[in-house]
Amino acid sequence: MLDALFCPRAVAVIGASNRELTIGYRIVQNLVDSGFKGPIFPVNPKADFIKNFIAYKDILDVPLEVDLAHIIVKNTRVPEEIEKCGKKGVKVVIVNTAGFREIGPEGEKLEAEMLEVARRYGIRVFGPNCQGVMNSDPEVRAYCNFTFTKMVEGSISVMAQSGGVGEVINNRLYELGLGFRMYASYGNQSDINATEILRYWGDDPGTKVILLHIETLKDPAGFAAAATEVSKRKPILAMKTGRTKLGAKAVSSHTGGMMEVDTTTNLLLDRCGILTFDDEEELCQAARALSALPPASGNRVAIITNTGGPGIIVTDEITENGCEMAELTEASRETLKNGLYPEASVANPVDVLATATPEHYRLAAETLMRDPHVDIVFVNFITPFFVDTEGVARELVDVARGADKPMVVVAMTEKEGWASTLKIFADAGIPTFDMPEIGGRVAASLAAYAGLIRRPRPTTVSCGDIDRAAADRLVAKNRDAGRKFMSQSDAFSLLAAYGLPVAPNAEVADAAGAVAAAGEIGYPVALKVEAEEVVHKSDAGGVVLGLADDVAVRAAFEDLAKRFPGCRVFVQQQLVSGVEVMFGATRENPEIGHVVAFGLGGIFVEVMKDVIFRLNPLSREDIAAMIRGIKGYPILAGIRGRAGVDIAALEDLLGRVSVLLANHPEIAEMDLNPVFAYPKGTEPGLADVRIRLN
Amino acid sequence: MLDALFCPRAVAVIGASNRELTIGYRIVQNLVDSGFKGPIFPVNPKADFIKNFIAYKDILDVPLEVDLAHIIVKNTRVPEEIEKCGKKGVKVVIVNTAGFREIGPEGEKLEAEMLEVARRYGIRVFGPNCQGVMNSDPEVRAYCNFTFTKMVEGSISVMAQSGGVGEVINNRLYELGLGFRMYASYGNQSDINATEILRYWGDDPGTKVILLHIETLKDPAGFAAAATEVSKRKPILAMKTGRTKLGAKAVSSHTGGMMEVDTTTNLLLDRCGILTFDDEEELCQAARALSALPPASGNRVAIITNTGGPGIIVTDEITENGCEMAELTEASRETLKNGLYPEASVANPVDVLATATPEHYRLAAETLMRDPHVDIVFVNFITPFFVDTEGVARELVDVARGADKPMVVVAMTEKEGWASTLKIFADAGIPTFDMPEIGGRVAASLAAYAGLIRRPRPTTVSCGDIDRAAADRLVAKNRDAGRKFMSQSDAFSLLAAYGLPVAPNAEVADAAGAVAAAGEIGYPVALKVEAEEVVHKSDAGGVVLGLADDVAVRAAFEDLAKRFPGCRVFVQQQLVSGVEVMFGATRENPEIGHVVAFGLGGIFVEVMKDVIFRLNPLSREDIAAMIRGIKGYPILAGIRGRAGVDIAALEDLLGRVSVLLANHPEIAEMDLNPVFAYPKGTEPGLADVRIRLN
Repeated sequence: MLDALFCPRAVAVIGASNRELTIGYRIVQNLVDSGFKGPIFPVNPKADFIKNFIAYKDILDVPLEVDLAHIIVKNTRVPEEIEKCGKKGVKVVIVNTAGFREIGPEGEKLEAEMLEVARRYGIRVFGPNCQGVMNSDPEVRAYCNFTFTKMVEGSISVMAQSGGVGEVINNRLYELGLGFRMYASYGNQSDINATEILRYWGDDPGTKVILLHIETLKDPAGFAAAATEVSKRKPILAMKTGRTKLGAKAVSSHTGGMMEVDTTTNLLLDRCGILTFDDEEELCQAARALSALPPASGNRVAIITNTGGPGIIVTDEITENGCEMAELTEASRETLKNGLYPEASVANPVDVLATATPEHYRLAAETLMRDPHVDIVFVNFITPFFVDTEGVARELVDVARGADKPMVVVAMTEKEGWASTLKIFADAGIPTFDMPEIGGRVAASLAAYAGLIRRPRPTTVSCGDIDRAAADRLVAKNRDAGRKFMSQSDAFSLLAAYGLPVAPNAEVADAAGAVAAAGEIGYPVALKVEAEEVVHKSDAGGVVLGLADDVAVRAAFEDLAKRFPGCRVFVQQQLVSGVEVMFGATRENPEIGHVVAFGLGGIFVEVMKDVIFRLNPLSREDIAAMIRGIKGYPILAGIRGRAGVDIAALEDLLGRVSVLLANHPEIAEMDLNPVFAYPKGTEPGLADVRIRLN
Repeated sequence: MLDALFCPRAVAVIGASNRELTIGYRIVQNLVDSGFKGPIFPVNPKADFIKNFIAYKDILDVPLEVDLAHIIVKNTRVPEEIEKCGKKGVKVVIVNTAGFREIGPEGEKLEAEMLEVARRYGIRVFGPNCQGVMNSDPEVRAYCNFTFTKMVEGSISVMAQSGGVGEVINNRLYELGLGFRMYASYGNQSDINATEILRYWGDDPGTKVILLHIETLKDPAGFAAAATEVSKRKPILAMKTGRTKLGAKAVSSHTGGMMEVDTTTNLLLDRCGILTFDDEEELCQAARALSALPPASGNRVAIITNTGGPGIIVTDEITENGCEMAELTEASRETLKNGLYPEASVANPVDVLATATPEHYRLAAETLMRDPHVDIVFVNFITPFFVDTEGVARELVDVARGADKPMVVVAMTEKEGWASTLKIFADAGIPTFDMPEIGGRVAASLAAYAGLIRRPRPTTVSCGDIDRAAADRLVAKNRDAGRKFMSQSDAFSLLAAYGLPVAPNAEVADAAGAVAAAGEIGYPVALKVEAEEVVHKSDAGGVVLGLADDVAVRAAFEDLAKRFPGCRVFVQQQLVSGVEVMFGATRENPEIGHVVAFGLGGIFVEVMKDVIFRLNPLSREDIAAMIRGIKGYPILAGIRGRAGVDIAALEDLLGRVSVLLANHPEIAEMDLNPVFAYPKGTEPGLADVRIRLN
């Protein structure tokens, strides 16, 4: 339990100072300014007073119990201060001091030493190298942090790996009048980590929405489990970072980052039901809507507008971001037609016209709220001077308040002149957005969250006909032989052990063997050189396709033998060409499953980058979504009279690949490319496989 | 000249009113409140006074000269009021009244009548069905408009087709402390149109940046000429609207729009050197930077940051939006290394660290400003409480002021607490942006404008070997015959007249003719049914490929004759398959050239939508950019050992297509799909053509 961290009854500041531009001063000041509800104990051996407080020489001199102590002394002195905290009975320490793991081996050692002391006394450690935490709960008001955002009570909790990004978000929430519930920027996470905080906030009734900024995950499996559970109960929103190559490079070079941010992290966030954002402004505005409005049940948006241009902008914005324009019922259109101006447009967007009265807005809003085809009501309201805009606001607020659907209100106005109109919305807790674009994106976030919480429970993939023992043997054999890449023959056998459709094949050492194998396999065949060092066999001229008879096989073998002396050769049934697809897998992060890729094969995957990635293990739903999600799916499904391929067979194949990968974490990389997909009823053909072991 | 409109010396308001919620009251009030520098003459036959002014019964009673008159009376009375204005010698009228062309034929007639009167007296008309204009020039201060944005003098002029969008933009500029120079929302553009206003602002020394919101263009050719000229002198920024299908539908249904917004308009804006935006906020912020900072000379950005996370966000943002991360010179890195903290990162982003001093910022900013590899200096500054942030601001401002490169400053702070720091930037005219994302996009806009003004002068495509007479004859023949689609034979002949590589072909009426033609053409051949009503010949089974001899040709002909009785048949040399590409053209807007499309052909164009559009006539640069701009270009250039195709031959082909289209505006639609591209030295093969006439 993190109560001692987020709801401390008394706080000590070890390393408190009277010099204003120090963290030791700032934390004391922040605690005072924010109205912390408990006693504050500055500790400083050289001062008599810190601000208005007695300064204690030592934490052990503090006369009352202390739940939480900040430690701001020099890094090498941190362990001894923790020791004293242990003796004093302090429950948790926030180590603001830097100079630990993030500076290298020496710091790593110091961090371990500090942790050892803490564990001995049962003290929990937050940090080191961190900002701290905040809690705006009126019973607590703990500003255990040295930053500058003013504390305003709110319902959004913010956790940020980068204190800078955390501050930008907090500050923006403040500007939006939202404040925050709790905040944490945890630095090195030596003990208390993101997972634990996420669970704590998941159980905190005061937290309605959780915002995250994560560059790297320390405990990905634990985090994923927690996030999956919490995201069902309340929205979790996260900033994606390092999403470009250069951005990722910047993450890995910036001190404190433990490993490179990559596709894996972003895929993991998606899998856990976290909404991800590229933009802090959109993140904050979405959090605003999600914390204030009833949840949407779908993505169908109906727009009320009083001006054409901004209505078009909203239409563009929402349809580009995963929403649909609601198709209003006949009854709704009839009601609107009878109640609005004759010139009003009663399709969606409903244009009530600039001169619309408060009653018109009420009618339109009520009608759309009642329409079973509408999930989100969107009001695009520019404030004409000749309209009773306060009346409009009152009617809209009245409809929104009783409704079980969210109303997204864009109020385009001059904020000083129309302050009283805006206040009507604000007082009712209905957020207003300044511009149609941001309103549209917020509506899209509401729709996305509706989709997330309605996702079906993923169906586990299982396949009974697996020869696990053979599979383990094959992997072990190649690892024991110190191979980086599995031999072709063993790789295909591994696939076969998982019931994957592997064409007949054999590994041979001489021309006679090749001819014999080809005879058994049946012509035509292909020959490939079997040499670990020749990875791109095709590019190196190590593959000969379409050999039709003994003579051709012998000639091809001898040619390969000449060019790759001493190499064994792999003989494989020549596959009939089909629609080329590819399956790939890499394991970038040993603590997270493989990233599995599916796409069209051949040169198109390289050039068009039409590939979908998901984290293994894949569910049935993942598999269906991956295959149907590539842009080239119509080519698989059949287009313009051309027959499609056997999609179910591809799904089965991907399922077996997923089980294989899950069973063999030793596989660092696997490529099935190309795989030929054939018309319904024909199993796909695996033309080539490459498996790298770690 | 639009001086009477934008710089009126005296304004009359015909239809002025004392009722507060009327346009006739509001305009008088706006003129007064904004401090109009000339006399105001309300005209109202029933009132003695309007606000503090004598109300004249009639414009003819006004005792002084009037440059500009608002007309707000009932639509049917507008012509007679203009007549009176004519007698009075009024130079320009703003007709705010609606109920003209936008309501249908009756309104159209009224608009024509009104214009006739105006022309008789040499009066220029702005509107009808419009907001009006504004000019914040301190010598003028004309608020000839009924909206609510407060008038603040600025250097950005705003023209908006949608008054609503115009207000959102103006209001945002006001919030950003920028104000505007001039404003126009022109309604039906019966006389004074966007082109004329654009030229006027192009010549206005007080206008540094022009913002546009355009849904539909009335005079596309004139507008394009004006914009091309003006955009070389000052940045023109425009909102794209109706960019999704549903958005475009909304444009066409919203009253007042004259035609559907489409690809054409957006392509035209691009061609004229206008920067286009999807987002009003980004538009306003880019205008802010472009109006305040020296222009960039390129897209290489160097970042100074004092915190890691936001630095990564900027890196992501700029690299995703067309900028490059500058590669600092060795000398710069050396200077930074010697002058910054030892732990600072001297690569780009330059992380000066949170504790950096004002001197550190100065050193970093000066170094990057001097670095010849840097076009834009980006400062990502979060305000730590322990830093002399005012000192930092002073140093940065000092460097920025003397520099010939722009400095984009993101100041992440709590605006009340750090007001004095922000004021230092504001007083120096250096805009600060709140968040790294928007700062990154602004930098991208500076880079985009740098690219625009440095675009080489387009090279006209010309080809000498054209048989124009034959081409005209072929088009005329098909039009005269009332054909919607040109016959295959004529279409190929038209292509041949433009020197396009057309395979030998013939149109035949019977089997014997087919065999004879095939013999002459040389085997193998393809047969296609020649019937105007069978447009998708292939889908309808009207195409037989790969006929190798007389017997096959005869059989194929007879089969076609049976299935398409009475149709003629087109015999064509069977082309060797190559890389399939496609060329397409449509003419959506008769006043603008064809939209030309280029992409990979076959099913990939349909599925992958990997197509680039440009407006005809194409320059050599357009052609080069189109062919190199598709995602699939590596397939054309050659990838993984596969030979590429003859790119120069494709360029030549596209050039000839462009000339053909320019010469024949009667072509409504043209498809060359597929065209087979072959290795260097071999002319492409045009397998199929479809030309629709209008």
